Amino acid sequence: MAMSQFVAPASLSANRRPRVAIVGGGFAGINAALALGKMPVDVTVIDRRNHHTFQPLLYQVALAVLSPAQIAQPIRTIVRRNANTEVLMDEVTAIDAAAHRLILASGTDFAYDYLILATGATHSYFGHDTWAKFAPGLKTVEDATEIRRRVLLAFELAERHMLEHGWHPPLNFVIIGGGPTGVELAGAVSDIARLYMKSDFRHIDPSMAHVLLIEGSPRVLAAFPEDLSAKAQTQLEAIGVEVWTSKHVTDVGAGYVMVGDQRIDAVVTLWAAGVAASPLGKMLDVAPFTRIDKRGAVIVDQQLNPAGMPEVFVCGDLAHFEQDGRPVPGVAQPAMQMGRHAAKVIAADLAGKQRPSFRYWDKGDMATIGRLAAVAKIEWPFKAHWGGFMAWVTWLVVHIYFLIGFRNRITIFATWAWTYFTFTDGARLITGDQHLAGWDEATQDQAQNRVEEVSRTKI
Amino acid sequence: MAMSQFVAPASLSANRRPRVAIVGGGFAGINAALALGKMPVDVTVIDRRNHHTFQPLLYQVALAVLSPAQIAQPIRTIVRRNANTEVLMDEVTAIDAAAHRLILASGTDFAYDYLILATGATHSYFGHDTWAKFAPGLKTVEDATEIRRRVLLAFELAERHMLEHGWHPPLNFVIIGGGPTGVELAGAVSDIARLYMKSDFRHIDPSMAHVLLIEGSPRVLAAFPEDLSAKAQTQLEAIGVEVWTSKHVTDVGAGYVMVGDQRIDAVVTLWAAGVAASPLGKMLDVAPFTRIDKRGAVIVDQQLNPAGMPEVFVCGDLAHFEQDGRPVPGVAQPAMQMGRHAAKVIAADLAGKQRPSFRYWDKGDMATIGRLAAVAKIEWPFKAHWGGFMAWVTWLVVHIYFLIGFRNRITIFATWAWTYFTFTDGARLITGDQHLAGWDEATQDQAQNRVEEVSRTKI
Repeated sequence: MAMSQFVAPASLSANRRPRVAIVGGGFAGINAALALGKMPVDVTVIDRRNHHTFQPLLYQVALAVLSPAQIAQPIRTIVRRNANTEVLMDEVTAIDAAAHRLILASGTDFAYDYLILATGATHSYFGHDTWAKFAPGLKTVEDATEIRRRVLLAFELAERHMLEHGWHPPLNFVIIGGGPTGVELAGAVSDIARLYMKSDFRHIDPSMAHVLLIEGSPRVLAAFPEDLSAKAQTQLEAIGVEVWTSKHVTDVGAGYVMVGDQRIDAVVTLWAAGVAASPLGKMLDVAPFTRIDKRGAVIVDQQLNPAGMPEVFVCGDLAHFEQDGRPVPGVAQPAMQMGRHAAKVIAADLAGKQRPSFRYWDKGDMATIGRLAAVAKIEWPFKAHWGGFMAWVTWLVVHIYFLIGFRNRITIFATWAWTYFTFTDGARLITGDQHLAGWDEATQDQAQNRVEEVSRTKI
Repeated sequence: MAMSQFVAPASLSANRRPRVAIVGGGFAGINAALALGKMPVDVTVIDRRNHHTFQPLLYQVALAVLSPAQIAQPIRTIVRRNANTEVLMDEVTAIDAAAHRLILASGTDFAYDYLILATGATHSYFGHDTWAKFAPGLKTVEDATEIRRRVLLAFELAERHMLEHGWHPPLNFVIIGGGPTGVELAGAVSDIARLYMKSDFRHIDPSMAHVLLIEGSPRVLAAFPEDLSAKAQTQLEAIGVEVWTSKHVTDVGAGYVMVGDQRIDAVVTLWAAGVAASPLGKMLDVAPFTRIDKRGAVIVDQQLNPAGMPEVFVCGDLAHFEQDGRPVPGVAQPAMQMGRHAAKVIAADLAGKQRPSFRYWDKGDMATIGRLAAVAKIEWPFKAHWGGFMAWVTWLVVHIYFLIGFRNRITIFATWAWTYFTFTDGARLITGDQHLAGWDEATQDQAQNRVEEVSRTKI
């Protein structure tokens, strides 16, 4: 392949070690950094946050089982043993790819020899950005604590309204999007309502909460085999989650979700439907090539380079990499593998060897459904589809194994054991604002309905 | 005593159980609620937050050792086993003491037969409320995460500034107030800088951070015996904290603290100086009696009642209770004892017995100084003054013992053991805003000074 032999930039003298800038401290960035840690390069990890987040467990923070610090670790602590690696908490505002430099929010330029761009994805509301206020998504620790705040506050406000007025608006929790995040959130909300809160309220019955999962496509977990989608739906229904498929949300507002023309009252709405690539991808989209797909992800070749940019690697959710005619999914495993592969390509360059091609090694995929069940599609070390309790055990082992840091493994395992056997979640804090978007509307609308009902009855 | 025999309100028929409203879920409120849990009364705990906070360990959340959920627990979880107790997350906006009712922020009235008022204290900036923005205090979980954000961000911004500009403003941390909170914060900031971050930065040396503790009175820990104050100061100095006593802060602004006419540059300023009683105390200050002291605390008699209000108990930091000619201090122990005493008085009323008088049983007081030392004034089971490592062990045992909930005891003990032996703190997350009040001013001022220096040198 013509492109696979990369000639080191002319600016690199024999004495200077190449500078690798890694933008983004997610799975791809961290794995690239760790793989580069012992190589004769200088590495700078740039992230606007100080911490790496273990996103697959973020939903457990959102639903009060785990604490933020259990699934997030400072990036500099993760790479502290690699003397060639520095961490810069800053934001990249522009990429001058021709000049091999980044422009940072703090105002300075940052020159690189290699760039690993791994800033991932963000929520997409399909052009309806006003929905964001009423239906938060789940990508960051802040998102997780905001969802936790809303879910817990809904129960508190219902108890208060019941105590003070003798009634409360229905506790409808609507989750939009039936992918792994939506399924896991729905199961976890159901767990909270049915199990963890049952002895805590005197006036409301938390288990009367209603959890509705809305998916636009014909089945939940569309990326899984059909039998597992069906199993997931059955398991969700078994723990009281109502599942609507092939239904499209047309509006989201304060206290409601519109599905076609049908209005659904919702005290809390969560967004797990749309994902868009980080805006940094577009910064590479300069002539003569079109380098991004319609999602905003950067189309990369077998060496993870955008066309015509052999010194730039795009990894993780921000990359559009096709294998066997399909794009590789935007989950943790391919991100980790891409990050390590970028490091391998740089190693090949340094050794004057042929650049290796990337191939995603799919070991399988999983999603939990509440505290008892999961679905697992296993591709390695053997092929299998599992549902139910055994899949949940598999999920547990795999997630504990991949957590960064011995300490987090231990504390999360202990927290899970505690929660599992005592039916008590441990991180049920409401912090920040005590106002719930839509609550006032819900209580006023319904108070009005009640007045009208009473009037009608009287007539 | 004439007042000690309380006649139950006329509104109480033989069939109705008296309603006890407890306002505030701190140490006093929770202990009152737990003591009333098996009595023939109906209890409502009203708090604007959903959680009880174990305030003595809040500084460890502020300094990234513990997570918020380890020291805070939902109030309704604490009282879940008491069927007579309900929890209402709401705010009291007025007290109609004559009519025995509370006005709540949600707009409703709440009638009580007994009221236990225990809303504690808040920061006081001695009339300089503009200082609050630049020097946060430490009373809530939100305060703790805000302090954590600022302290960690200061190191990140210094690293960034060093990397990008080759210099950084001095990492001066100023703590105003030399009581237990100030001493503990100063020790903990010093620990972070000297120990927990030492391998994490490439461009700055965190141990060069400078911690300054400013106290207005002639000695730190003024409530402790003089020899312990001296020991505390020696121990603080041993871990690199500079201690100024008899110094008064005259202004606090973005990036600086004024002490008299002297300007001290400060990247982070923390406030541990002034405390004022919660504003609810003033709501009881109606004719014919003057019921509050100049701090806003409610003056109570031997039964913890404000003058002329035998159905109202004021407990904890909000109460001004004199014993042996001195007001009882505003710390956890008297609050817990007062809460339990209010319940005892109610029990006496129900049994038609003489109301017992409150007496504070002082078991001692403690403060830690970094990770190795503490001072302890022990009053029970024997009298002793300790400083150093043994005092620290005493502190550890006592604090673990008083934590509510077996789970918190275990996880905190495990976290401490981990932090202690590995020199790694575990909750080092920066969440929320990434701007540090005063940083821009500090870097600009000093960039200006540097330009002037350079100009001078050139001339």
